[in-house]
Amino acid sequence: MTTATSLEDRAARADAEDPLAPLAGRFLLPEGVIYLDGNSLGPLPAAVPPALADAVGRQWGTDLINSWNDNGWWQAPLRIGDTIGRLVGAAPGQTVAGDSTSVQLFTALGAATALRPGRPLLVTDPGHFPTDRYLADAVARRHDGMEVCRVPPADLEPFLAGHGSRVAAVSYSPVDFRTGELYDMAALTEATHRAGALAVWDLCHAAGAMPLRLDALEVDLAVGCGYKFLNGGPGAPAWLYAARRHHDALDTPLTGWNGHAHPFAMHRDYTPAPGIARARIGTPPILSLLALEAALTVFEDVDLSELRAKSLSLTDFFLTCADELLTPLGITPVTPRDPARRAGHVALRHPHAHGLTRALADRGVVIDMRAPDLLRFGVNALYTTHTELLTAARHLRAVVRESAYDPAPPRSGPVT
Amino acid sequence: MTTATSLEDRAARADAEDPLAPLAGRFLLPEGVIYLDGNSLGPLPAAVPPALADAVGRQWGTDLINSWNDNGWWQAPLRIGDTIGRLVGAAPGQTVAGDSTSVQLFTALGAATALRPGRPLLVTDPGHFPTDRYLADAVARRHDGMEVCRVPPADLEPFLAGHGSRVAAVSYSPVDFRTGELYDMAALTEATHRAGALAVWDLCHAAGAMPLRLDALEVDLAVGCGYKFLNGGPGAPAWLYAARRHHDALDTPLTGWNGHAHPFAMHRDYTPAPGIARARIGTPPILSLLALEAALTVFEDVDLSELRAKSLSLTDFFLTCADELLTPLGITPVTPRDPARRAGHVALRHPHAHGLTRALADRGVVIDMRAPDLLRFGVNALYTTHTELLTAARHLRAVVRESAYDPAPPRSGPVT
Repeated sequence: MTTATSLEDRAARADAEDPLAPLAGRFLLPEGVIYLDGNSLGPLPAAVPPALADAVGRQWGTDLINSWNDNGWWQAPLRIGDTIGRLVGAAPGQTVAGDSTSVQLFTALGAATALRPGRPLLVTDPGHFPTDRYLADAVARRHDGMEVCRVPPADLEPFLAGHGSRVAAVSYSPVDFRTGELYDMAALTEATHRAGALAVWDLCHAAGAMPLRLDALEVDLAVGCGYKFLNGGPGAPAWLYAARRHHDALDTPLTGWNGHAHPFAMHRDYTPAPGIARARIGTPPILSLLALEAALTVFEDVDLSELRAKSLSLTDFFLTCADELLTPLGITPVTPRDPARRAGHVALRHPHAHGLTRALADRGVVIDMRAPDLLRFGVNALYTTHTELLTAARHLRAVVRESAYDPAPPRSGPVT
Repeated sequence: MTTATSLEDRAARADAEDPLAPLAGRFLLPEGVIYLDGNSLGPLPAAVPPALADAVGRQWGTDLINSWNDNGWWQAPLRIGDTIGRLVGAAPGQTVAGDSTSVQLFTALGAATALRPGRPLLVTDPGHFPTDRYLADAVARRHDGMEVCRVPPADLEPFLAGHGSRVAAVSYSPVDFRTGELYDMAALTEATHRAGALAVWDLCHAAGAMPLRLDALEVDLAVGCGYKFLNGGPGAPAWLYAARRHHDALDTPLTGWNGHAHPFAMHRDYTPAPGIARARIGTPPILSLLALEAALTVFEDVDLSELRAKSLSLTDFFLTCADELLTPLGITPVTPRDPARRAGHVALRHPHAHGLTRALADRGVVIDMRAPDLLRFGVNALYTTHTELLTAARHLRAVVRESAYDPAPPRSGPVT
């Protein structure tokens, strides 16, 4: 009883003192739901419906084709790229929004290997999100003699000591998408550079969740999605960052006409546009892009360091809840305790992760799972409260104690 | 006077007798505008705003992550692909929607060349839309020894007689995007097949404008955009068709995780899904996809042969208007008179095409131009009337006679 009271008190106090609490008002969160899956699909920002209604009714419906100029559609990938750039520590003119993360990865990895000719190795993380691994393989098989090496981040330094001079690029995510572990981007980037290789980062699970310093770390290329911590909506366009120093030599595999230096002159041959515009490909999905742009207004006047501090407070508190309420029932946290090694979600291990996830959903707690046995609790400091996390932990405790779940083996489902 | 009266009478009669006239009510066309640029950006279908409001407010806002299953987001690319398939003569299970036309072209041309190993030539049209040419070059430079040959459709047969056994694929559009000339898809596909090569068609300017018979012609691969005659909105997702007989061997260059046989099992290696699903790449822009899906409902119960017949009546009538009202002023039609060789827009030549286009816009007639000297009048039988075309011709005549336009040299602008 004492413990229970004290967790509730702690949650209530932390929420009452939270200077970022009003930011939750920027979202249209559904009633009666504790949404802890923003690391998969961010919730709907209040700014999106009116922005999209305007994009459809006025821009498309009334202004029609003129909107490419008059409503800034043509510049949208670069304008929205710059807005994302501000969230990831990139000065303007180095980030472009559009296409899917998979397509952007193909561009980034293709461009990276082209920038390091004669180096036949492409390093990726065996624990990397599948599409990162598949696209690394796709890029390698288009280059004679290129080989993908799957090296966990913890083993990168020794690997580079032996093979560094043959490595073209290292493609990592700073966040393990299953466990929520955060790797040291600075150290890994520096090790990569010491070997003369390029650092390519997938920031799907990091952008919008914590401060990032792409320019300061001299990252070479980076990609990320728009639909997790950026809250841009389902399948929101992804983005690509390429450091300015690489622009003149940036050789992208998908030379669509939007990346041409003079797209409307309809020249016979492809001449890449100067700057990051050369990473544009085809005509982008404007409605989805403008929804993403509206979603990004959530971050206006938000200090990402404050956001990160609150995120760490939330995940720390949830780990405490887990220790007191869940570990005794056999539900084990796998996310690191060290704040420097913890990203934006907490993963708990239980053999019946699938059944527990569904039982929680029935109680209004939305999380997701990763096969076979990880429950993922995504916190987003823009709207998550400590009290919600405690409630989620209590529901999970009750479900397990009462065996109120289906222990059927986990099955896969269409959720990222 | 006689001529004028008779053109007006003809237009009025044709419109009064038009069985498809009610279809215009399926669009939210702006007041006071004659919109003849649907071959660049289709206007807003009335079904789109409520569908998108539901996608945003209920599906994303309330159902959140569950929408991937519960609201059919995961299946959307295949479901919408099949809907498009019905418009292009493709049986279900061969068409997928998503990504841009440029990305789909890269996939189609990459897959086509992989299906014909040992054949080093890729044929494209020197008059093809730029992105088609650029992507053909992009695919060729990733294959050692592959060469792009730019052969006009009229010269294909003699070219194949000399080089056919070395041709992997022929990549054409049935419509010249500048002149509106329609090529003989059946004959060109047959000639390609006689050479043992694959036929890859870009149907951006044809899908939704006329009946197409991909299955019946045994076309191998095809792509198209969603935003011209399909009216799916700015940058609406494109689509890819691959004939079923090629599925098992279809080797796509962009092996994103959505195309995996078991995407949520997160396997170590890429195993392509069976069927057309293997052509999926990354997570698609759902809001833009669902807008496209709503737009496609416009075609429900529409007979594409009737639509084509009306389209030909419209373009024929506009050519007559041009003959009587514009040719005497030095504005020359370049679109073929032969209906079998005329697609969905009419192009007129005048050295001041740019200034005339702007002057027409000031009078509420929206067309576009292609540098240096072509005015494009796009007709869409779903909503265009004969009277509108006569009015447009009269405005153009007045603008030229009164020299009420800026004769500055054409400049390029962001419109496709």
